[in-house]
Amino acid sequence: MNEKILMDLIEQKRYIELKEKLSEMNEVDIAELLNPLEHHITLLIFRMLPKNVAVEVFSYFSSEHQADIINAITDKELKYILDELFFDDMIDLIEEMPANLVNKILTNSTQDERKLINQFLKYPADSAGSLMTIEYVELKKEMTVIEALKHIKAIGLSKETIYTCYVIDNNRKLEAIVSLRSLVVSDDNKSIEDIMHDDVIYVNTHDDQETVAGIFKKYGFLALPVVDMERRMTGIITVDDIMDVMEQEATEDFQRMAAMSPSEEDYLDSSVLTLAKQRIPWLLILMVGATFTGGIIAKYEDVLSAVVILTAFIPMLMDTGGNSGSQSSTLIIRGLATGEISLEDIWKVLWKEFRISLIVGITLASVNFIKNMLLDRVGFIVSLTVSCTLVVTVMVSKIVGGVLPLLAKRLKMDPAIMAGPLITTIVDTLTLMVYFKIASSLMHL
Amino acid sequence: MNEKILMDLIEQKRYIELKEKLSEMNEVDIAELLNPLEHHITLLIFRMLPKNVAVEVFSYFSSEHQADIINAITDKELKYILDELFFDDMIDLIEEMPANLVNKILTNSTQDERKLINQFLKYPADSAGSLMTIEYVELKKEMTVIEALKHIKAIGLSKETIYTCYVIDNNRKLEAIVSLRSLVVSDDNKSIEDIMHDDVIYVNTHDDQETVAGIFKKYGFLALPVVDMERRMTGIITVDDIMDVMEQEATEDFQRMAAMSPSEEDYLDSSVLTLAKQRIPWLLILMVGATFTGGIIAKYEDVLSAVVILTAFIPMLMDTGGNSGSQSSTLIIRGLATGEISLEDIWKVLWKEFRISLIVGITLASVNFIKNMLLDRVGFIVSLTVSCTLVVTVMVSKIVGGVLPLLAKRLKMDPAIMAGPLITTIVDTLTLMVYFKIASSLMHL
Repeated sequence: MNEKILMDLIEQKRYIELKEKLSEMNEVDIAELLNPLEHHITLLIFRMLPKNVAVEVFSYFSSEHQADIINAITDKELKYILDELFFDDMIDLIEEMPANLVNKILTNSTQDERKLINQFLKYPADSAGSLMTIEYVELKKEMTVIEALKHIKAIGLSKETIYTCYVIDNNRKLEAIVSLRSLVVSDDNKSIEDIMHDDVIYVNTHDDQETVAGIFKKYGFLALPVVDMERRMTGIITVDDIMDVMEQEATEDFQRMAAMSPSEEDYLDSSVLTLAKQRIPWLLILMVGATFTGGIIAKYEDVLSAVVILTAFIPMLMDTGGNSGSQSSTLIIRGLATGEISLEDIWKVLWKEFRISLIVGITLASVNFIKNMLLDRVGFIVSLTVSCTLVVTVMVSKIVGGVLPLLAKRLKMDPAIMAGPLITTIVDTLTLMVYFKIASSLMHL
Repeated sequence: MNEKILMDLIEQKRYIELKEKLSEMNEVDIAELLNPLEHHITLLIFRMLPKNVAVEVFSYFSSEHQADIINAITDKELKYILDELFFDDMIDLIEEMPANLVNKILTNSTQDERKLINQFLKYPADSAGSLMTIEYVELKKEMTVIEALKHIKAIGLSKETIYTCYVIDNNRKLEAIVSLRSLVVSDDNKSIEDIMHDDVIYVNTHDDQETVAGIFKKYGFLALPVVDMERRMTGIITVDDIMDVMEQEATEDFQRMAAMSPSEEDYLDSSVLTLAKQRIPWLLILMVGATFTGGIIAKYEDVLSAVVILTAFIPMLMDTGGNSGSQSSTLIIRGLATGEISLEDIWKVLWKEFRISLIVGITLASVNFIKNMLLDRVGFIVSLTVSCTLVVTVMVSKIVGGVLPLLAKRLKMDPAIMAGPLITTIVDTLTLMVYFKIASSLMHL
C-alpha cells in the first residue's frame, strides 16, 4: 500500500479494507508509510492497529510522531505501550522526548522501572550500557532441558531474544550461555550444565560501542551479554542494534575524513546552523594552515616573476599531491577501522607505499612530460622541472598519507583526522618547496 | 592462549595441556592464533582438534592454510570436512582454491553436490545467490507445532540457522515463515498454518547484495529467504554474512571517494602492482583535468605579474574550496548510501547548502580579512579581493558538492565518484576564474 491508496481509503472511509491491508504489512513498513503524514492521520491509523502491532509501529516512528501520540493518548494506553516496549527502545524514547512528556512517561511507570530507567540513562553515550536491553532469558545450570524449554515458553514472548539464554549463578554472575538451538535438539532430561558453553565472550557496560561491533563482526553472534564490574549480568545487546552502530561508525569516519565534526543527526533533519557549525572549525584551521604555503610562494616571488609559466602548474601539482596522499591515507584509515591493519604494520606500510609511489610517480611524470612537451609546449627545462616535482610530490604524499594515520593511532588520536584535507595542506607546503628548489637549481635562478 | 604459550607447549610436547587450552577457546580465536603460523604447526594443531571444532576452525583459516591442509589430508578427512562445512563456506572455498585442489574437492563430492556447486558458482558476484546457503529448515503448513519441533530436533544440528523456518508448498514455492520463537511458545497441537506469517519479505537470487543489506538493516532480520524467478525457495542469507557485506560496501565507497578503483582485497595482502593500478587511472584523469586551471592562470599572467602577492593566496583559496566541496559531497554521498537522502531531495539539498554556504563563507572571509589586514599586512584591496573570492568559492563549492552526487545518481552512476578529488578539480577552475575577475575589476587591471 502506498500513500495515495491510504489517503483514498481514509477519504472514502473504507476502514475495514484499510485494516485488512495494514494487517498484511510489516511494522517497519507501516511506520515508514505513516512517518511523512500529518499527525491526526497517523493517530487515526495508529488506533486502528491491533495493540501489539501498534507498539512495534510506535517504536519505529519519528520522534515527532512519538511525541504527538504520547500527547494524544490516555494514560491507560500509554501504560500499555510502555509495558510492551522493549527496554532499550523505552530508553531511546525518553532520551528523545521533551521534558513534559518524559514526566508523563515516568508517572506511568512503576517505582522499580523508574529506578532502572535512571540507571540506564547514566551510561555514557556510545557505551555498551547505552545499547543494551534487559529482556533476556535467564536459566540456572541445575535445570533440565525440558524445564528450561517450559520456562522459555512461559516468559518467551516478552523477551527481545530467546535464541541465546544466559546461565547465571545465585549472585547473578554470568556463568555460561546456552543457545535455543542446543535446547531444541538436546534430550529433554539432559541438564543445562551438560550442554552450556562456559567460555562466554562478554562485554562490560562501559566498553565502547566500536569494540562491541568488532566482536559481533568477528564472531558472527546474534546477541552478546553485558556485565558489570563484578561480572554480574546486566543486559544483552542484539545484532540488529549493532548494524545501526556499524553504519553510524562508518558515517562518523566519512565525516571526520572530510574535515567535519561527526554528528549522529541525519542531514535533512539537521538545522542549517548545526550543519554550519559542524563544518566551520576544520575549514578555519586548514585555511590558516595554508598560510605556510602562501609564505613559500611569497618567498620565491622572484623565481615566479622570472618564469611566470611556473605558476600555471601550481594547481596541478598541489591537486595531484593531495589526491595521492588521500588515496594512501584512506586505505590505511579504513584498514585500521576494520582491524585489518594494526600499529605494528607501520614498516610494512612504509615500504609498500614507497614502492607504490615510485611506480605511480614515474607513470604520472612520464605522461606529464610528454604532455608538457607536445601539447603545452613549455620547453624542455620547464617540462623537466614539473615532471621531477611530480615524482617527488607523489612519493612524499603517499608516504606521509600512509604514515600519519598510524602515528595518530599511536598517539591515541582518531586516525580518520589524518585524511585528505589535512594531508593536502601538509603536502602542499612540501610540494611547493620541492618545486621551487628544483626550478631554481635547474634554471640557475 | 597467545602464540608464545602455544609454541612453548608444542616445544615441550605438553600436548594434553595444549588440547585443554584449545578446548576453552572460540573457533574464531583458534583460527586467528594459527593463521600467522607455519603450515606444519597449523596442521599439527588442526589434527589435535575435535572433528567438529576442526571443521569450523578450517572455515576461518586464510586461503593459504586451507590449501595446505587440503593438500596434506587424506581423502577421507577431506570428505568429512566437505560434509560438515556449510554450503556457502564450501562455495567460498572452491572459489579461492587453485585448480588441482578444486579437482580434489570435486572428486570427493557426490554427483548431486557437484551439480549444486556448479549452479552456485554461476550466480553473479555480489548477488544474493552468491551469498546464500542451502542449510535451512523447511516445514509444511499442515504440520503441528510438536511435529515441527521434532523435525527440527532430528535435522537441526546440520542447519546454519534454525531460528527462522520456511514453509513451502508442494511446488517448493515459499509460502510463509515461522520463527523458532513462535514454535517454542505455541501450544504443541496448533498447526503451523495458525502461527506462520505469510507476508514474507524475500529477495531474488539476482538481487544486488547492497539491496539485501538494506533489507536486513531496515527490518532487523536474522535471516532472509532467497527465491528464484518462480518464487521457489533456493536458499537463505544469514545476518553474519551481511555484516561483512556492509563493511565491504562502506570500504568500496571510501576507496571510490578517494579516487581509487574499489578492490575487495585487503591492503596488506595486495601486491604493489595491484595497488598502483588501483590508483593510477583517476590520478591521471584528475592531473589532465587540472590543465584547465593552469590555462586560467596562464591567461591572467599579466594580472599576476602586476600584483605578484595575489599568487600567494592561490593555494589557500583552492584548498578551502576543495575542502568546502568535499564536506558537502561527503554528507550527500553518505546520505544516499544509507538511504536517508533520495533523488527527490535535490531542491531541499540545494536550498540547505545555499544557506549553510552563506554562513560558512562569510565566517571564513571575515576571519581571513582580519588576518590579511593585521597579520599578512597585504593592504585593503588585496584583502578585500581574497575575502570576496572566499565567499564565492565556498558557496560555489558547497552547491556543486551537494548537487553533483545527486546528478550522478540520476544518471545511474555511482555517487561516490563525485567526492573530494573530482569536486576539487572542478571547483579549482571556478575559484581561479572568480579570483581573477574580482582582482581585475577591484584593481582596474
